[in-house]
Amino acid sequence: MRTTGEILRETREALPTLVSSRDLKNEALRAISARLISETDNILKANRADVEAAGELYGSVMIDRLTLTEERIKDMAEGVIKVAELPDPEGRILSRVERPNGMVIEKTAVPLGVVAIIYESRPNVTSDAAVLALKSGNAVILRGGREAYRSNEAIVRAIHLGLRDAGLPEALVGFIEDTDHRSADELMEAVGLVDMLIPRGGAGLIRRCVERAKVPCIQTGTGICHVYADASADLDMTLDIVENAKTSRPSVCNAEEVLLVHKDIAKELLPRLKERLVDQRQAKDLVPVELRLDEKAREIISGTPAGPEDFDTEFLDYILAVAVVNDVDQAIAHIAAHSTGHSEAIITNDASNADKFTTLVDSAAVYVNCSTRFTDGGEFGLGCEMGISTQKLHARGPMGLEELTTYKYVIKGNGQTR
Amino acid sequence: MRTTGEILRETREALPTLVSSRDLKNEALRAISARLISETDNILKANRADVEAAGELYGSVMIDRLTLTEERIKDMAEGVIKVAELPDPEGRILSRVERPNGMVIEKTAVPLGVVAIIYESRPNVTSDAAVLALKSGNAVILRGGREAYRSNEAIVRAIHLGLRDAGLPEALVGFIEDTDHRSADELMEAVGLVDMLIPRGGAGLIRRCVERAKVPCIQTGTGICHVYADASADLDMTLDIVENAKTSRPSVCNAEEVLLVHKDIAKELLPRLKERLVDQRQAKDLVPVELRLDEKAREIISGTPAGPEDFDTEFLDYILAVAVVNDVDQAIAHIAAHSTGHSEAIITNDASNADKFTTLVDSAAVYVNCSTRFTDGGEFGLGCEMGISTQKLHARGPMGLEELTTYKYVIKGNGQTR
Repeated sequence: MRTTGEILRETREALPTLVSSRDLKNEALRAISARLISETDNILKANRADVEAAGELYGSVMIDRLTLTEERIKDMAEGVIKVAELPDPEGRILSRVERPNGMVIEKTAVPLGVVAIIYESRPNVTSDAAVLALKSGNAVILRGGREAYRSNEAIVRAIHLGLRDAGLPEALVGFIEDTDHRSADELMEAVGLVDMLIPRGGAGLIRRCVERAKVPCIQTGTGICHVYADASADLDMTLDIVENAKTSRPSVCNAEEVLLVHKDIAKELLPRLKERLVDQRQAKDLVPVELRLDEKAREIISGTPAGPEDFDTEFLDYILAVAVVNDVDQAIAHIAAHSTGHSEAIITNDASNADKFTTLVDSAAVYVNCSTRFTDGGEFGLGCEMGISTQKLHARGPMGLEELTTYKYVIKGNGQTR
Repeated sequence: MRTTGEILRETREALPTLVSSRDLKNEALRAISARLISETDNILKANRADVEAAGELYGSVMIDRLTLTEERIKDMAEGVIKVAELPDPEGRILSRVERPNGMVIEKTAVPLGVVAIIYESRPNVTSDAAVLALKSGNAVILRGGREAYRSNEAIVRAIHLGLRDAGLPEALVGFIEDTDHRSADELMEAVGLVDMLIPRGGAGLIRRCVERAKVPCIQTGTGICHVYADASADLDMTLDIVENAKTSRPSVCNAEEVLLVHKDIAKELLPRLKERLVDQRQAKDLVPVELRLDEKAREIISGTPAGPEDFDTEFLDYILAVAVVNDVDQAIAHIAAHSTGHSEAIITNDASNADKFTTLVDSAAVYVNCSTRFTDGGEFGLGCEMGISTQKLHARGPMGLEELTTYKYVIKGNGQTR
């Protein structure tokens, strides 16, 4: 087994070849796509071994995330072609000034260098992350979860074959062979070898990265998302949005976890909410939503009494914490105290309250009259995403290709001195 | 004395007032400028006490940095007015898309929130940092050095009076009263209270921040800047640029520390370099530059033999490390191994080597045929600067007002669900 340090150094050394071969990038992506198809049998075989080993240890949601099919591999390969067709994020001139002394200063988008990603379960992240990194001119270090090791390794083999087909070094996509905690810690501390670290996974992994990382790190994903129904909210719209935000895919980070209701509409809205999310879903044989209610909400409808921790929990499940608030200011203050800065929505017909909410709520995405579920690179028109940043430095919200670049100033003169 | 924690919480609580009072920002800056003038006597008195106390402990360069005069305070006040006149970096629409479902997504520049700065000696940083932060809609936490404590306190008093004149809370500019290491460490760990930390000072402070900080931190300043004289370099231009880059202000981060010379021009260039930087300067009663030469350079001229550490040292002094290289590739490789990513220059008449150098050298500013000394917010036309970032995430190179903002996505719909 090669050590994490060896892999990091090989990838760093391969980087200049990519930087000076921008014209080969799309050719490499097309070759990778073809190799994913031609390697399908090997990938499926490796995946079956992972799934069998996982079967005894993990639940069905995890098994579903882990399992590959011929169809899913075809989707991965098609995804690679779509990324190849996106505009090149490298080399964009972000600004250009000619100074009075004749110097021309161009602020130019350039790759970050080596991007590392630590992720769990889903093997398709292996090809998504590698391909987004390559398209933006970066080398990449992949460190997947133990449970998907064989699948990831087989996918990386296809990627390496594709790179070789295009005449690029395999080391541009470095695959960490060691899947215990130590290798993740080594990535967090690889100053000078890793230019950006993206942890994609559970809250524990992300916390560990933020606390330990000595390399630049992007905090991603955790979403305690709020919907606030204002006094003037259209109640039908509110119910549609809350049902969508809560139940269309409760396990994802942009799902709603908390509903705040203005006191003036609580008496009318809450009984209808219970009917929609509990009674009607039960009648349709769908999983009913467990409502965890604050004291004021419990005066109107029945449900589980909410403990204080319920307003600070990313449930990722059919559970919704509900509180009644006095006005938009109290809603904004509640969000400031409890949000993770991911996505929040206001449902209102009052333009000045909408304005106040979008101005004062300090989250990556702030919605007026639509569902929080739209926070996603594809839905935002970015074409793809590497993860969703909940921090404010460098990138915020869905990270597409542009967020995988930095810039440099290139200054041309003819002898200017200061 | 108020604790650092108390000050941080007060500033965080004051922030929403600023976010919802964008229209008052410039009024506040003008009031601060006026108060700096009207408080001149108090500031000078406090500064004299700092200078007297420092006199026994520090050298003359430090005393010069610390000392304020009526003229310098007037410059500070005028600097504030200039910042007030710059365009507002808040509220810029960075992109706008209307999605097929009718949702409108605006990527909008917004303040970061609370920006903290840890700095040393120069009291004018107090007003510069506060004013840049306020102009970009941020609250600020100032933590200056012990040796300038009284001066900083007096300047902050003027700023607080100006804020009060404009009807804004004083706590928007938080001044840390404790100047020992503990308060700096508290800022580095103030997760949720500090949105961006900028250390401005010596290499030790910056290293400590990068290693300890749990809040987002910008690595600034350290500059081991290289000038590479290519085979086709104009020798007169090279000498002008090297003299400027090395001697115009050796104590600053954009000064040259290393000269790399192509072997084909070394025999002609190096004797002229010695004449220009050593002999002519001595004749003019200027400080001569100490040349620290690698083996090949010592075959051509005399000088101090360079130890390996000389190519990894930010001298900030009249010292220049000199090495002879075989070609542009070796120069680029040397820079990759030894640079801090600040500023590098190539002197050449070969367009393809210039292109290779600007593409492969991975620094904030890469120059062709001009001096590294231009890496500066004012010289780049940004109007001002908060510091010079040598990292790649969020901001690179001089940080002006735009670099003190982040963005949020504001999405408006009429009931869209996913």
